[in-house]
Amino acid sequence: MNTPSVSPSPLSAEQLQTLDAWWRAANYLSVGQIYLIDNPLLEQPLALEHVKPRLLGHWGTTPGLNFLYAHLNRVIKAHDLDTLFITGPGHGGPALVANAWLEGTYSEVYPKVTHDRAGMQCLFKQFSFPGGISSHVGAETPGSIHEGGELGYSLSHAFGAAFDNPGLLVVCVIGDGEAETGPLATAWHSNKFLNPARDGAVLPILHLNGYKIAGPTVLARIPHEELEALLTGYGYAPYFVEGDAPIAMHQRMAAVLDEVIQQIRLIQQRARSEGVGVRPRWPMIVLRSPKGWTGPKEVDGQRIEGTFRAHQVPMGNMSQPGHVRILEDWTQSYRPRELFDDAGRLLAQIAALSPAGNRRMSANAHANGGALLVDLKLPDYHDYSVEVPGPGTTVAEATRVQGEFIRDVIAGNPHNFLVFSPDETNSNRWNAVFEVTDRCSIAEILPEDDHVATGGRVMEMLSEHQCQGWLEGYLLTGRHGFFSCYEAFIHIVDSMFNQHAKWLKVSSEIPWRRPVASLNYLLSSHVWRQDHNGFSHQDPGFIDHVVNKKAEVIRIYLRPMPTRCCQSPTTACAAATTSMS
Amino acid sequence: MNTPSVSPSPLSAEQLQTLDAWWRAANYLSVGQIYLIDNPLLEQPLALEHVKPRLLGHWGTTPGLNFLYAHLNRVIKAHDLDTLFITGPGHGGPALVANAWLEGTYSEVYPKVTHDRAGMQCLFKQFSFPGGISSHVGAETPGSIHEGGELGYSLSHAFGAAFDNPGLLVVCVIGDGEAETGPLATAWHSNKFLNPARDGAVLPILHLNGYKIAGPTVLARIPHEELEALLTGYGYAPYFVEGDAPIAMHQRMAAVLDEVIQQIRLIQQRARSEGVGVRPRWPMIVLRSPKGWTGPKEVDGQRIEGTFRAHQVPMGNMSQPGHVRILEDWTQSYRPRELFDDAGRLLAQIAALSPAGNRRMSANAHANGGALLVDLKLPDYHDYSVEVPGPGTTVAEATRVQGEFIRDVIAGNPHNFLVFSPDETNSNRWNAVFEVTDRCSIAEILPEDDHVATGGRVMEMLSEHQCQGWLEGYLLTGRHGFFSCYEAFIHIVDSMFNQHAKWLKVSSEIPWRRPVASLNYLLSSHVWRQDHNGFSHQDPGFIDHVVNKKAEVIRIYLRPMPTRCCQSPTTACAAATTSMS
Repeated sequence: MNTPSVSPSPLSAEQLQTLDAWWRAANYLSVGQIYLIDNPLLEQPLALEHVKPRLLGHWGTTPGLNFLYAHLNRVIKAHDLDTLFITGPGHGGPALVANAWLEGTYSEVYPKVTHDRAGMQCLFKQFSFPGGISSHVGAETPGSIHEGGELGYSLSHAFGAAFDNPGLLVVCVIGDGEAETGPLATAWHSNKFLNPARDGAVLPILHLNGYKIAGPTVLARIPHEELEALLTGYGYAPYFVEGDAPIAMHQRMAAVLDEVIQQIRLIQQRARSEGVGVRPRWPMIVLRSPKGWTGPKEVDGQRIEGTFRAHQVPMGNMSQPGHVRILEDWTQSYRPRELFDDAGRLLAQIAALSPAGNRRMSANAHANGGALLVDLKLPDYHDYSVEVPGPGTTVAEATRVQGEFIRDVIAGNPHNFLVFSPDETNSNRWNAVFEVTDRCSIAEILPEDDHVATGGRVMEMLSEHQCQGWLEGYLLTGRHGFFSCYEAFIHIVDSMFNQHAKWLKVSSEIPWRRPVASLNYLLSSHVWRQDHNGFSHQDPGFIDHVVNKKAEVIRIYLRPMPTRCCQSPTTACAAATTSMS
Repeated sequence: MNTPSVSPSPLSAEQLQTLDAWWRAANYLSVGQIYLIDNPLLEQPLALEHVKPRLLGHWGTTPGLNFLYAHLNRVIKAHDLDTLFITGPGHGGPALVANAWLEGTYSEVYPKVTHDRAGMQCLFKQFSFPGGISSHVGAETPGSIHEGGELGYSLSHAFGAAFDNPGLLVVCVIGDGEAETGPLATAWHSNKFLNPARDGAVLPILHLNGYKIAGPTVLARIPHEELEALLTGYGYAPYFVEGDAPIAMHQRMAAVLDEVIQQIRLIQQRARSEGVGVRPRWPMIVLRSPKGWTGPKEVDGQRIEGTFRAHQVPMGNMSQPGHVRILEDWTQSYRPRELFDDAGRLLAQIAALSPAGNRRMSANAHANGGALLVDLKLPDYHDYSVEVPGPGTTVAEATRVQGEFIRDVIAGNPHNFLVFSPDETNSNRWNAVFEVTDRCSIAEILPEDDHVATGGRVMEMLSEHQCQGWLEGYLLTGRHGFFSCYEAFIHIVDSMFNQHAKWLKVSSEIPWRRPVASLNYLLSSHVWRQDHNGFSHQDPGFIDHVVNKKAEVIRIYLRPMPTRCCQSPTTACAAATTSMS
């Protein structure tokens, strides 16, 4: 259970310099977004009038995100990786915006934010500003499929994105605050459903910076060996990168990333040449770094870096004596004149760290999944009609018939359609799907199991959060799917549904975002028939919850209810969120 | 990280016989509830007309629950333990009803279900029958505070019940299906918030029986060392009881329970004599037993025991040739004539396993928390009024003032009032509470932490599920509390809110259940002001979700909004569920 060893110092002096310069540039741009409205290159001595009148944003997690982004760029270029970056701590928005601007993507999708001095000023001003951009990694942020405002779903989204994407590496940063949520705590087990031959890889990076908002985090305050046991118990091989000295941290992170990429390649090669055997122990990384790393050590006699005080804006009241000076020292500590030329453009030798085109994480094609969307090949639904020769003469089950339709959708679309359910495929009467596929499991399979196989296209875990999160990740990267659930328990994902609907709404207003496929629910086990289960299983309220959204975002379908056409406790009701398509 | 060793065979032949007899009696009564409508003592050869016309219920988990109940009775008597039993797999309702009947509690609270032949027949007939009882461990079930219909909250409820109850042992059975849910996956971390001096103990028992409904479970299909690492990583010392041979399993479970009780006592004695030091490694148990243990091995050529087919009713269609015979063999395998006398009463030597009075888990006083409820000592709210000498002259923050009130409630009620929050106490402006208490943590505490202490009465974990689950457990065992949250993210517990409201509704109709205290929410960070956060943090829908319940169950309070009396992004809105009181 020990962390495998890695080479100590893989970076040359030049590589180290470039990496550190990128990191400083991203940190500089992040601080600029939070604080500055003018004087973006610090060409004049910093003064109060250069500072925004109202300071908003979250600094704490940002430098860690920038550190990871820079290092990932190095390995993406070295290994030509197709990499999607998912930001669990989505309030680190400044980091993702900064990196997208450094990579040029930001100016490509938002031409008014040019890659120069004026654009930099615009970049700074627009952040969390009236008429500007949100502080989170929302749909407006190029490269994002995950806003990270409501915490808990980053890792489920990451695995959903990786399913059926064998060439994709999904890097998922998980904050230690988010790691306390239930959905995230069970999302680690997604590795029992990731097929190393069919699917891509997910690299979770647990970022421990010690505090959520004001209080300490659980995973930062348990002994090292306990954390290692936990992550090993989740089925991963954890690699630790811990400290605060930049040079040592750069070398260590580079060494770990090299090792981790090699491990992922080995796992995939083995599965793809020898077949999917024993579930692999996928690597993951624990990054322990100070909250607000490289920010002010102290303000007004209070420690900032490494404490909960670094969570949002380290200095709120800039009219306090000395605060402008602290901000100037802080921003100058990144040595912007060594990073940007007089025109405000990133120096070429630093910009060379960026991958090209769609290899840039901010321009990864999978992050705008609608553009990759391929229409489902659907059978003619007339072929599934139930003959009703006269009133009251036919006994049939709506969802059993629907299961036959879904079976044929699965068969006709073997690479871009999945069914998700908390083990309700059978009880919702979709049994026919097992004529053409199985439940997916990469964990141990026993002979007495019913239709369980490593290649199954029915993803069943007893977590509505996980099913919803997987499906969202799958859809947002341009595929199709269906969530089969019980009516009462779909309330478990009320809040996820809302957040997804908000993402769709905002996306529909962004010209470069293409519409993704609808998120389809089958809701059965209705309130009216609960002989087995009773009151706990009765709740018709999800339709109320859904129907208050606009018709551009949701559709509800209720099946017709002819007399005597409902002989089983299972009936069909489908509510679907849909994009503008 | 190895499981500590335990003595191999602690039970005498007589103890073993009594334990096994109790287990058989409970299993017999469970099968009877699922299948029989007549001939409860099998005095006549079993015939189809003795079988219910419609078979409902869940057998799979039931024998494991009965096994645990019998063994707990032994240690409760041996050590005079005050023990609350929480049934995560709540659809094992027949088990809890059976044990309550064996202990006499059932007949005490429902006099028509007498402890004799006629009562047994009534017990059998009423289960999942029109006009009868629910199949889950609902509010009707004596000894229950947890229905277990919607899965995921058993362990949070258990810890909530243990807070501020130093004399209580809460045993919490967690099914391996439930263990896949997000809320349960993070609930394990509750041990970082349980103070061994101030609080009671929680003994989690993870019951691995291999399948959820039709599919295999995650935790049953990972290697032993991985499961052990996971549970160790969660901070527990796991003890394993694995197998299917009854005698060996009895000895092993008895040995493990003896050891576990001793470990719990040692942890508590140390903390209570020497003070709360390093967080203890609380013991827990993994019970791995076949699904549908002791049920039919095979029906119609298909394996039942140990497979997913044992989940509900092993034989659905009793008119099939031979099925009545299988049922007769099955029920007779428990040798009912050695368990019950001719009048249908449990034989005295077996009944002697039961503890007396409120030591019976089915009669535990904490499971009817309303009967233990002590009114809060509340300060006069007039003392907190904000002076408004004239319109538009006062600047104040509603929740900051409320925080002063809550501060004084905490101070005045040091043993039966707690505040729960996903780290939003400060941002919701209840800062004043930290004048009299701290955030609670039994994990590592650093000097730079802000008001964190082992004795803190503010329970902050970044999981709305955990906060809600803890608070429900705390309230249902007769105490008071407040949940401070953001408006948008309270949707995360929509479904938990519904289930709690249903529990309150049903409880209000049960004469022996006494009303518990209201579940109070403070919802702040409203939709209207989200400068820091944006769209992801905007959602005013929880009030809609709440307000569709009847006024007997919910109340909503909106604070008055005088002009200029809201200068901060934080405003106050409290929605409260309340019992009939």
